[in-house]
Amino acid sequence: MFSTADLRARKRALKIFWDKFNKLIESIINEEEPLLEIPKRTLANTVYDESRKLLLLGTQKLTRRMFDAHEARKFMQTLLMARIIYEALLNDEYPTIRDLYYRGKHTIVYRDHKGRIREENTWDEQKESDSVIRDLEVLLGLLREEMLILSKEKGKVVGYMRIKSGDDIIDLSKMGHGAYAIESTPDLIEFLDVDAEYVLVIEKDAVFQQLHRIGYWKKHKVILVTSAGQPDRATRRFVRRLNEELKLPVYILTDADPYGWYIYSVFKIGSITLSYESERLATPSARFIGVSMTDIFGDPQKGKKPYLTEKERKHYIIKAKPADIKRAKEIINYKWFQTKQWIKEINLFLTKKAKLEIEALASKGLRFLADKYIPEKIAIKDWIE
Amino acid sequence: MFSTADLRARKRALKIFWDKFNKLIESIINEEEPLLEIPKRTLANTVYDESRKLLLLGTQKLTRRMFDAHEARKFMQTLLMARIIYEALLNDEYPTIRDLYYRGKHTIVYRDHKGRIREENTWDEQKESDSVIRDLEVLLGLLREEMLILSKEKGKVVGYMRIKSGDDIIDLSKMGHGAYAIESTPDLIEFLDVDAEYVLVIEKDAVFQQLHRIGYWKKHKVILVTSAGQPDRATRRFVRRLNEELKLPVYILTDADPYGWYIYSVFKIGSITLSYESERLATPSARFIGVSMTDIFGDPQKGKKPYLTEKERKHYIIKAKPADIKRAKEIINYKWFQTKQWIKEINLFLTKKAKLEIEALASKGLRFLADKYIPEKIAIKDWIE
Repeated sequence: MFSTADLRARKRALKIFWDKFNKLIESIINEEEPLLEIPKRTLANTVYDESRKLLLLGTQKLTRRMFDAHEARKFMQTLLMARIIYEALLNDEYPTIRDLYYRGKHTIVYRDHKGRIREENTWDEQKESDSVIRDLEVLLGLLREEMLILSKEKGKVVGYMRIKSGDDIIDLSKMGHGAYAIESTPDLIEFLDVDAEYVLVIEKDAVFQQLHRIGYWKKHKVILVTSAGQPDRATRRFVRRLNEELKLPVYILTDADPYGWYIYSVFKIGSITLSYESERLATPSARFIGVSMTDIFGDPQKGKKPYLTEKERKHYIIKAKPADIKRAKEIINYKWFQTKQWIKEINLFLTKKAKLEIEALASKGLRFLADKYIPEKIAIKDWIE
Repeated sequence: MFSTADLRARKRALKIFWDKFNKLIESIINEEEPLLEIPKRTLANTVYDESRKLLLLGTQKLTRRMFDAHEARKFMQTLLMARIIYEALLNDEYPTIRDLYYRGKHTIVYRDHKGRIREENTWDEQKESDSVIRDLEVLLGLLREEMLILSKEKGKVVGYMRIKSGDDIIDLSKMGHGAYAIESTPDLIEFLDVDAEYVLVIEKDAVFQQLHRIGYWKKHKVILVTSAGQPDRATRRFVRRLNEELKLPVYILTDADPYGWYIYSVFKIGSITLSYESERLATPSARFIGVSMTDIFGDPQKGKKPYLTEKERKHYIIKAKPADIKRAKEIINYKWFQTKQWIKEINLFLTKKAKLEIEALASKGLRFLADKYIPEKIAIKDWIE
C-alpha cells in the first residue's frame, strides 16, 4: 500500500532517530546528566558563505539540560516531539506540522518540591511546537520532509521530463492543460529523463498557466515551474535538484518590486530565519530574469533601451508604497544583493519609486511576454545573478 | 501546437461574440441608437431558487446606451473589452483577467462640445475592468473560462479516473505522491472512465496530501479533491461536473467554523456576488461531512455521542473571535442555511462560542481522521445537506 520510496525514507529516518536518542538513553543508564547539544538557530549563528553563496548555520551549539529549571520544559518538549515523530514513522503515518502540534498538546499534572499540585501545558501555540520541530531538524540533520511530515504545497511543474514519484512514472509533458502538483517530499522523486535547456520559475500561477497553455515550454524546451507566490520548501527543493543534478540553469520571473526580489532571494539564498535549510533548499546560481528596473527605465551606461516607452511607463507603473521603500532599504543591506547590478536596480527603484506587475507587459500585446520578452532576455543574457 | 479542445472552444466563443455584436453593428448601420441589454448583476436581481437550490440571476436587465452621458463610458468599456477578448480568441492568445486590465488601460484624448481638449482613462482599476468582463459573461451567456481567459488555480485531484485534457490522456491514479493540478478551463476536460464511490473535497491542502499519501482514495474508491482554502471557479466547476455527469455524491470536509461553512456554501450554492455563475459552478446536492458542532458536542436529541471528550474539548477547542460570531450571524440568515440541522449547528456555535480545526482530530491518533472519522460519518450518513 505504501510506496517503496516512503518505506525506504522511513527506515532511514528511524535509524537516525535511534542512533541519536540511543546516546541519550545510554547517558541516563550511566547516571550522567541527560542533555542534548543542538546547533543554534539564531541570527548571530547564521553565516553567509561567500564562496558557496549560501546562508548556513554557524558552529555554535546550545546545550539543553534536563536538570536546569530554565531548560527542563524545552528539554521535555524536544523529547515529546521526537517520540511523536518516531512513532509516526513506525506506524506509517503522515502527520502535518499542525497535526504534531495537536498530537502533543496536553497538560501535565505534577507535584512540585513542596508537594503542591501543579499544571504545565506541553505547549500552548503552534509557534512553540514548530520551533521544536526545527530543533529536531538541526539536531538530527534531517529535514522534516525526510521524516515524512507533510505540509501545504503550491508548486506546479510541466516540461519534457519523466519522473518517478511513489511507485508511479509520470510524464510531465502529458499533463494536458493542467499541471503536476509537486509533492511535499521532493527528495523522494527520481528524475528519469529530461529534455530541457533551462528551468523557468514563474512567481504567478496565472502567468505560468498562460505560458503553459501557449506552449512556451514545448517551443523552448523548458521545465516550467510556478511557486504561486512566496515559494514553499518543496518547490525550492525541487528547483534546487533540477539545477544541481540535471545541471539546468534556473531563471526566476517575478513582478518588478521588492516582494518579487525577495521571492528570488528565497529561491537563491534561502530565508534568513531558516538558514539551516538553505544548504539543501537554495539554488545559489539562480538568475533573476526580470522584470528588472532597467527593463522599465533602460540603462544608458550599458546602452540598454527600456522595454516600455515614456507613455507606457506613465500608464502602467504603480507608485511604490512606503512598505515597498522600507523593504527595498532592508534588501539593499543583504550581502547577496551587494553586487553592482543589484545596487543599481535597487537605487533605481528608490529614485523612481516605481514598481511594475509582470502582466503590465500584456499592454504591448498578449504574446509579448512569451514571444519577445523572455526569449530575448535569455538570448542576450540580460539577467541578474 | 494548440489542443483540439482549445481550438473548438475558440470557434464556439467567436461565433457567440459575432452573433451578439453583429446585431449592434446592424443597428448602427440602420441608424438606430447603439445599445446593449445586459442582465443586472445586482443583489436585488439575485434569486434563490428553492426547487433547484441555486442562486440565480433574475430577469431584470439594464440598457447601456451610447448616447447617454452617464452610460457612454461604460458602453465604451464594454465594447473595448469585447474587442480585446475577441482579438485574443482570434489570435490564439490566453489572457489572464489582469492582462485584460493592462491591455485595455489607456487614455483617450478628445475635444468636448466646447472644443476643449479632454482626457478620459478607459479604466483606472482592475475592479472596473473585472466588472466589465462580468457584464460580458452575462451578456453573452459565456463564462470567462469559455473565452479562454485564465486565472490562478489552486485545485488538485487524485483518484481512479482517467481524463482527457488538451490532447493528453491523464490517469489520475498515477500521480505518485503528487497530484493533478486542475486546469483553468475545466469544461474542456473529458471524463473517460471512473471507478469511484464518491467525491471528497478537502478544504486544506495539507490534509488532502495526508489522505492521499495514506491511500485513503484507493481504499475507499474516492475522487479526492482539495480547494486549498476558498475554492476558485475551476475547482467548483470540476466538482459540479463530477457530481452532475458522473452522478457521484460530493462531501465537503472543512474546519468547524463559519469560514468552513462558507467554503461549503460556495461549493453548494455559489457566491452571492457572482450569482450568475452558480448555475454552472454550484453543486446543490453537496453534503457537509464535517467537522460539525455536534461532532464536537454531541446531539442528545438524536442520541449522538461527541467525538471529543470533555477533556479533549478543553484542550483543542479554539475560542470563537468576534469576527466569527458576526460571520455566523450573517450565515444563519442565508436561506440555504435555514434547515433544522443547520440552525442547530449555528446556534450551538453561538452558544458555545467554540471552533475546531480539522487537525485537532489528530490528537486522537494520526490516523483517526482517515481510519475512523470520515468513513464512519459516511457509513452512518451523519452529514448535513
